[in-house]
Amino acid sequence: MLKKLLFGVAYYPEYLKEDRIDKDFEMMKAAGMNTVRIAESTWSTLEPEEGVFNYSYIDALLKAAEGHDLDLIVGTPSYSVPPWLVKKDPAVLLDGKNHTESYGRRQNMDIMNLTYRRHVERAIRRLMERTASHKKVIGFQIDNECKDYGNFSANVQADFVEHLKEKFKTVEAFNEAFGLAYWSNSIGHWDDMPDMRGTINGGLATEFASFKRSQTAGYLKWQAALVDEYRREDQFITHNFDFEWRKFGADIAQDGYSYGVQPDLNHAEASEAVTLAGTDIYHPTQDELTGAEIAYGGDSIRSLKMNNYLVLECQAQAFKYWTPYPGQLRQQAYSHLASGADGIMYWNWHSIHNSFETYWKGLLSHDMESNPTYEEAALFGAEWQKLNKELLHLKKDNRVALVTDNNSLDALKWFPLDRDLSYNDVVRWMYDSLYEMNIECDIVDINVLDTSAYDMIVTPVLYSITEEKLNDLKAFVEKGGVLFSSFKSFISDENLTVFMDKAPHILSDVFGMFHQQYAEPRKLYIDGHKVEQFAELLQGAGAEVLASYTHQYWGRYAAATKNSFGEGKAYYIGGFTEKDYLKSLLKQAAADAGITVPELEAPLVLRSGTGADGKKISYLFNYSMEARTAANPCGEAVDLLTGYSYNPGEKIEISDWGVCILKEK
Amino acid sequence: MLKKLLFGVAYYPEYLKEDRIDKDFEMMKAAGMNTVRIAESTWSTLEPEEGVFNYSYIDALLKAAEGHDLDLIVGTPSYSVPPWLVKKDPAVLLDGKNHTESYGRRQNMDIMNLTYRRHVERAIRRLMERTASHKKVIGFQIDNECKDYGNFSANVQADFVEHLKEKFKTVEAFNEAFGLAYWSNSIGHWDDMPDMRGTINGGLATEFASFKRSQTAGYLKWQAALVDEYRREDQFITHNFDFEWRKFGADIAQDGYSYGVQPDLNHAEASEAVTLAGTDIYHPTQDELTGAEIAYGGDSIRSLKMNNYLVLECQAQAFKYWTPYPGQLRQQAYSHLASGADGIMYWNWHSIHNSFETYWKGLLSHDMESNPTYEEAALFGAEWQKLNKELLHLKKDNRVALVTDNNSLDALKWFPLDRDLSYNDVVRWMYDSLYEMNIECDIVDINVLDTSAYDMIVTPVLYSITEEKLNDLKAFVEKGGVLFSSFKSFISDENLTVFMDKAPHILSDVFGMFHQQYAEPRKLYIDGHKVEQFAELLQGAGAEVLASYTHQYWGRYAAATKNSFGEGKAYYIGGFTEKDYLKSLLKQAAADAGITVPELEAPLVLRSGTGADGKKISYLFNYSMEARTAANPCGEAVDLLTGYSYNPGEKIEISDWGVCILKEK
Amino acid sequence: MLKKLLFGVAYYPEYLKEDRIDKDFEMMKAAGMNTVRIAESTWSTLEPEEGVFNYSYIDALLKAAEGHDLDLIVGTPSYSVPPWLVKKDPAVLLDGKNHTESYGRRQNMDIMNLTYRRHVERAIRRLMERTASHKKVIGFQIDNECKDYGNFSANVQADFVEHLKEKFKTVEAFNEAFGLAYWSNSIGHWDDMPDMRGTINGGLATEFASFKRSQTAGYLKWQAALVDEYRREDQFITHNFDFEWRKFGADIAQDGYSYGVQPDLNHAEASEAVTLAGTDIYHPTQDELTGAEIAYGGDSIRSLKMNNYLVLECQAQAFKYWTPYPGQLRQQAYSHLASGADGIMYWNWHSIHNSFETYWKGLLSHDMESNPTYEEAALFGAEWQKLNKELLHLKKDNRVALVTDNNSLDALKWFPLDRDLSYNDVVRWMYDSLYEMNIECDIVDINVLDTSAYDMIVTPVLYSITEEKLNDLKAFVEKGGVLFSSFKSFISDENLTVFMDKAPHILSDVFGMFHQQYAEPRKLYIDGHKVEQFAELLQGAGAEVLASYTHQYWGRYAAATKNSFGEGKAYYIGGFTEKDYLKSLLKQAAADAGITVPELEAPLVLRSGTGADGKKISYLFNYSMEARTAANPCGEAVDLLTGYSYNPGEKIEISDWGVCILKEK
Repeated sequence: MLKKLLFGVAYYPEYLKEDRIDKDFEMMKAAGMNTVRIAESTWSTLEPEEGVFNYSYIDALLKAAEGHDLDLIVGTPSYSVPPWLVKKDPAVLLDGKNHTESYGRRQNMDIMNLTYRRHVERAIRRLMERTASHKKVIGFQIDNECKDYGNFSANVQADFVEHLKEKFKTVEAFNEAFGLAYWSNSIGHWDDMPDMRGTINGGLATEFASFKRSQTAGYLKWQAALVDEYRREDQFITHNFDFEWRKFGADIAQDGYSYGVQPDLNHAEASEAVTLAGTDIYHPTQDELTGAEIAYGGDSIRSLKMNNYLVLECQAQAFKYWTPYPGQLRQQAYSHLASGADGIMYWNWHSIHNSFETYWKGLLSHDMESNPTYEEAALFGAEWQKLNKELLHLKKDNRVALVTDNNSLDALKWFPLDRDLSYNDVVRWMYDSLYEMNIECDIVDINVLDTSAYDMIVTPVLYSITEEKLNDLKAFVEKGGVLFSSFKSFISDENLTVFMDKAPHILSDVFGMFHQQYAEPRKLYIDGHKVEQFAELLQGAGAEVLASYTHQYWGRYAAATKNSFGEGKAYYIGGFTEKDYLKSLLKQAAADAGITVPELEAPLVLRSGTGADGKKISYLFNYSMEARTAANPCGEAVDLLTGYSYNPGEKIEISDWGVCILKEK
Repeated sequence: MLKKLLFGVAYYPEYLKEDRIDKDFEMMKAAGMNTVRIAESTWSTLEPEEGVFNYSYIDALLKAAEGHDLDLIVGTPSYSVPPWLVKKDPAVLLDGKNHTESYGRRQNMDIMNLTYRRHVERAIRRLMERTASHKKVIGFQIDNECKDYGNFSANVQADFVEHLKEKFKTVEAFNEAFGLAYWSNSIGHWDDMPDMRGTINGGLATEFASFKRSQTAGYLKWQAALVDEYRREDQFITHNFDFEWRKFGADIAQDGYSYGVQPDLNHAEASEAVTLAGTDIYHPTQDELTGAEIAYGGDSIRSLKMNNYLVLECQAQAFKYWTPYPGQLRQQAYSHLASGADGIMYWNWHSIHNSFETYWKGLLSHDMESNPTYEEAALFGAEWQKLNKELLHLKKDNRVALVTDNNSLDALKWFPLDRDLSYNDVVRWMYDSLYEMNIECDIVDINVLDTSAYDMIVTPVLYSITEEKLNDLKAFVEKGGVLFSSFKSFISDENLTVFMDKAPHILSDVFGMFHQQYAEPRKLYIDGHKVEQFAELLQGAGAEVLASYTHQYWGRYAAATKNSFGEGKAYYIGGFTEKDYLKSLLKQAAADAGITVPELEAPLVLRSGTGADGKKISYLFNYSMEARTAANPCGEAVDLLTGYSYNPGEKIEISDWGVCILKEK
Repeated sequence: MLKKLLFGVAYYPEYLKEDRIDKDFEMMKAAGMNTVRIAESTWSTLEPEEGVFNYSYIDALLKAAEGHDLDLIVGTPSYSVPPWLVKKDPAVLLDGKNHTESYGRRQNMDIMNLTYRRHVERAIRRLMERTASHKKVIGFQIDNECKDYGNFSANVQADFVEHLKEKFKTVEAFNEAFGLAYWSNSIGHWDDMPDMRGTINGGLATEFASFKRSQTAGYLKWQAALVDEYRREDQFITHNFDFEWRKFGADIAQDGYSYGVQPDLNHAEASEAVTLAGTDIYHPTQDELTGAEIAYGGDSIRSLKMNNYLVLECQAQAFKYWTPYPGQLRQQAYSHLASGADGIMYWNWHSIHNSFETYWKGLLSHDMESNPTYEEAALFGAEWQKLNKELLHLKKDNRVALVTDNNSLDALKWFPLDRDLSYNDVVRWMYDSLYEMNIECDIVDINVLDTSAYDMIVTPVLYSITEEKLNDLKAFVEKGGVLFSSFKSFISDENLTVFMDKAPHILSDVFGMFHQQYAEPRKLYIDGHKVEQFAELLQGAGAEVLASYTHQYWGRYAAATKNSFGEGKAYYIGGFTEKDYLKSLLKQAAADAGITVPELEAPLVLRSGTGADGKKISYLFNYSMEARTAANPCGEAVDLLTGYSYNPGEKIEISDWGVCILKEK
């Protein structure tokens, strides 16, 4: 557990032509910062030739950190292999689906390659030897936004066959599990297993993707074990888990934001490697700042260990899209804390002067001087220093879980709802609806879901699921839980084989409903709300029909149903429609689950928890360009930022892009 | 000739985890079905290891077919090679233009590869030995939607050079035929012939494509010869010819519909391999069902042998787009019969539970139970059993031929009218205009066109044509025929060399018109109708100018002309404009050809022919969501579906998505 | 220097099946033509087998040229290698970024390959031996639209490393110059230098591109040296420099037009190879003819040697887009002369009957007969013959320079303003504004800019610039010049390393302004004009703020500034906005520079210079579909085309797509 809120930056003096460490550390301190992340990107600087190590920039940082009283997080530089290693053995580069990798970009190597492993182990060990004992080093970051990067190398494929042998024992069982008879894909011997690049079998492809996610998690654990040999007990191990990157098609390689479930790594599995969960969160800002991505990312990462976490990268002023309006940088910082973060670190300190991410700008622009964004960070840094104890270790006890699943995400790639409606679109449709209604939730991987911890469980397109988990959900409702599911949930088993009975498998009784068909919505409405992209034609079997479709032919089918089963309730929505309608159902469901929904709605956002001293702390945000007034949604409380006290229901004025931190008395 | 209307499905019990054959056959019989297509996709199930054959699922089907009195069509599984064969000799995979093929998808092999041929021959012979003598086997389907799949393998290229040597004798003649001097493409020796992947010569590329279509037709004939060694005389050989697949960009690999001329196979040439023409037809439905694709496909396939044909695949309820509205499944079935089909078979019986085409849903949904679509099929099956004799062998005697050409299609890829106006777009513009006016036509390849069989010939962008055929068309008009041609017809010879005199070559006299230039339409109109994408600037030379362009500068040019030549007439339209205008010209032309155009227009569609007993049978469809009334367009007639009689001109009520089958007395 | 205005065509009788040379030469003469370009495309015709030469078509042309009194320009056929050469050594084909080149297209070879060089040298020498002494041969074109075609071959990369060694001496200096520490790209030895295909370092990639531009220029110089060994002193060497090709996505490989700075060749550097600058210019026509591309191309090419130039290719009637309206072909011809061209040659004489560019139509359509376009050329040819002496050698003395830079163009590819706003978009935004205001300018590469020659210098996104050049610009303003710069100018040094102080580096004093941040415009306005894609947030530091942004938050920042520095003025515009606003600033700036801006505005375009006899000649164009009236903007003048005289200010009627040539008395 961290001892204080961290506030800092990623810092790369090795990118600069001149020595700025002291100047930069002074400016950081002046802004109220206490922590700097270093070293995680420049293996070729650390080891310019094979076996020749250069610690000069590390040593300088260690020394200066001590002088300036800044804590350090040391990152392993494993994700960018040096040119000499590629020259020595080009096989360290990964083998992609459609291309051979050329040297240049980071994350281009086969993380399972033994030559790579041997060399990266030495580099990590040397770095640990040099830094682990230093008193200003408070923790380590292993690797960076780790994945397998689309690797199809022969060794990975051979490992996959071994995995299949172990899982299925016989080729017959393997053929049957994935329906490989189709298009003559079945094999007579394990040796006949073809290259996975060409497979058209969605289930097998998903098994391979899942296998590779496990390999990647294993790689992180291997790194963690190396670090463990050196670190002190008070030093943490973390990793910056990131999310599906949603491009908006603007700049080269650099536009986009943190959107949803990470397709290439299973966070639940991989987070076993770390002692402290970390994350990178980027999001729209300016007119488009809603706080939703910050909350989504925070709720996901906090749920990994059901504990506070660290935002290892958050955005300063990158690109033209992310230059913050006055107030937004500060608001964003508190938004992270409101989700349970124990600190934030900007990526990065200064804008880089060349190379690739030149305009992924840091707090400082290229001129390395103070500027409006830096000044706002400093303002916030001063506030934070004062409130550090109050705001540390915010605890949540959410009664709602939103359930996610990597296999379902993969399944939807093979069997899409629509070109324009992905798995994460539906996840965000449901998450954002909850968020905008100020119903807080955990975001939990289906594989680690403990149903007993929640009163309400929400499943966006939980396409693939084991029968064991289906029975769990059934029992959850039976015992009084509220299950709220979208279309295309509970369709297939873990191998993406569709269940061979009426959908939803096992849960048809629970929902009191089944469906056999679905349709393109065209001119379809639910209760006046346009349905887009997908509509399941639901047939009641005991359920209360909350709404039928409005349509000449599909009008005979239900669009949304509600059913009592055992002590609980089960809601199902068949069509993808406007959030307003979804929210009206979620509101009913929350009421059934005994959850009180605040009166406030976005852009007024309320995020609460328990502070270190056991008192309730509520962040109240105004994510809009106009000042707004809210009735105090808490008990008698004081705004920690202004010191003003508010009675319950008393009017609170919140400026544009403003925030109050209400601590109940 | 088939003895009865076939009604059935493609069926793959080998895809299922449990034995359902008896249950499924019972459900098929209950739906009035009589035929099942089997075996054409699963070579790796039939021969799981090299030389080891497994007939268990075939035997089970043969046995059950006898028990349930269902006929079988046995397909050769040649289009999906098994993994062991690829392992044994990776050269069986085709060599694509931009990639090496990976194992996985079907139709990934080089059909000219000798190893492939040796192995597929054995698999076919073994299958024939096991099935040919069985009394329930009524015919065989060779391969599936066969093409060359974009193969550029060395053996194919070597064969192509041999073909060129034979055709052109000398390199000089070859160079000249295609204008290879251009950009230094001419060769001094046959040995210098470069890889065809890189050619930029549209004529040579088209020659190569044409050569490969012939190779593919040869491959089908080779398969047919193998089957011929085993089949009884009462057993047919068929193949499911398909069409240009027009994607609409929705789902992976699976969206689209049958749009126009098949670019990768010459149906006229390939159909020599079969005794019974077969086809796969898929089409938009729900709000977008017009019947046009069913009619286009049927008119094409019927014209191959000027005889009835079999729809080997028609759609059940695939994807969200194809879930039929009530009435549509039945209407679609009658639509196929109305074009001269002697039967239809759904693809497929049950939805597949995994792999790739999971949502190319069959009559049964994944739950394998009855559902609204299956129930409608059963309704239709019962009707059909009653009317089987009446509806079998509908004969057409169309007086209009719409002429198509693979070389012209290829030419338009190299020399497009516009990015958004393809060869098949113009084919469909003209075909659909005829269809909507209820002028029935044959669709005939220019290479097998017998002009003497028709009163009117329509040529959409017949860009490439031999002088022999040009003289045929000239003689056709001279003798009294009506020729109706679109822009960009009669431009080049068979090698895509543009004729070196005033266009249209040879036919300038016939049309009484020539053209030297063309333009982007921008704000161009014909008679108030907007011209899109392409406008030829026609200059009268004796022709009657039906319309000139409306435009500040191009107003001096004709847009459409009509000319008397000999005993006949020749129409020419220079611009791509709204169908309404085209129809007004087609109406005049039909009148000149002595063809009576019905009063009815789409969505009321009339399709007629002569029944087995020599009486005229007319299908009258309402392709719309509203009930409509039509005046009986026939003589005194009885609706075979209802038994109601109608006098000529008497009002007939037709429900939404309804049909009447009027048999004249 | 040419002795007369050239008027002619590119001619390829070797593409024709029949001998048309005499017929074609007669038709050319009848159209007033005097020059034909030959031979530059058909190496395989010249040398059908290795070492076997066929001069028959060359000899026939030489002989006929003499008979018909037509001058010839002989082109080297070096850009299309023959099939036998590729067969002999496939390594002559270039090695592309993502593909191996297949034989077929032109410009597919590695111009640095020694085998290629040896063979092309022989072919050029033989062609020179055969043609150089012929009296009708007036000059030579070396190669065609030469570039490196995206070559990454090993020999080019090895040469690049040698170049880097020479430039940077040590790997440390090299690593530092480009910031290669980033993502572990730094090297410890020159031998570790990775393949440039994979680099993600924008600066290094730009250095490589720049190096390849120099190699290509060197290749042209090598060819010129070969030709020099044979040519007479009265014979010129030229090359057809072309421009960035802006596609509009219509046809295959063939749509587009000459848009801006050529990315793949540095014209300033490469033009050292020729004695007479030449160019190819293609442009929109019909409704979209504005003259801007003709002027842009002409101003660029004229500025290379500050002398008259030759338009080696201009468009006749290609594709549907370029069929000229009546009057346009003539207007286009005069437009070229008005920029200082000493002649134009159509590409090409006749439309090609097959192969690839079949619809890049020549003056003659495929029928090889007279047609409206040919007839208009003949009309113009007759006028031109009369005015030849008057119109030859038009001299410009422009006081404005628009400055361009290949490195800045490359930089904007790596660090784009926006996906929809490229370097050349901004160049054209500023150039077209000047053009539409009838402010004539030279277009000058920053590397050869002589600031002393101008009163006003305009810099569109001059992102990359050396400190030496920055000091030049500072001195220019100090001495009284007017500098007018757009956003994102003066950002980085020549290696794309952003300057590490307040932008604009060195010039902050000059502009009296600095900027640290920029933003996505969203709802941003300048003085009522919408800002699109990019907005720098300018902070005044002494400058006059011409306009601030209209915006809730960015309203505190300047959008455009003006500053007095020394004797001069410096303008800066921070946002990309409507041309109207830009023009209002340019007008002020021109006034400051003592430049009189004509009253006329586009579509009335005025282009002036000094004729051979020292008198001012002004072309006055009406680029529109309506006749227009202009007040004579010159002194007392006579229209050389009509003989009419006009007093200053007297009304001149100009027809749609019309032109007057006003010669002052």
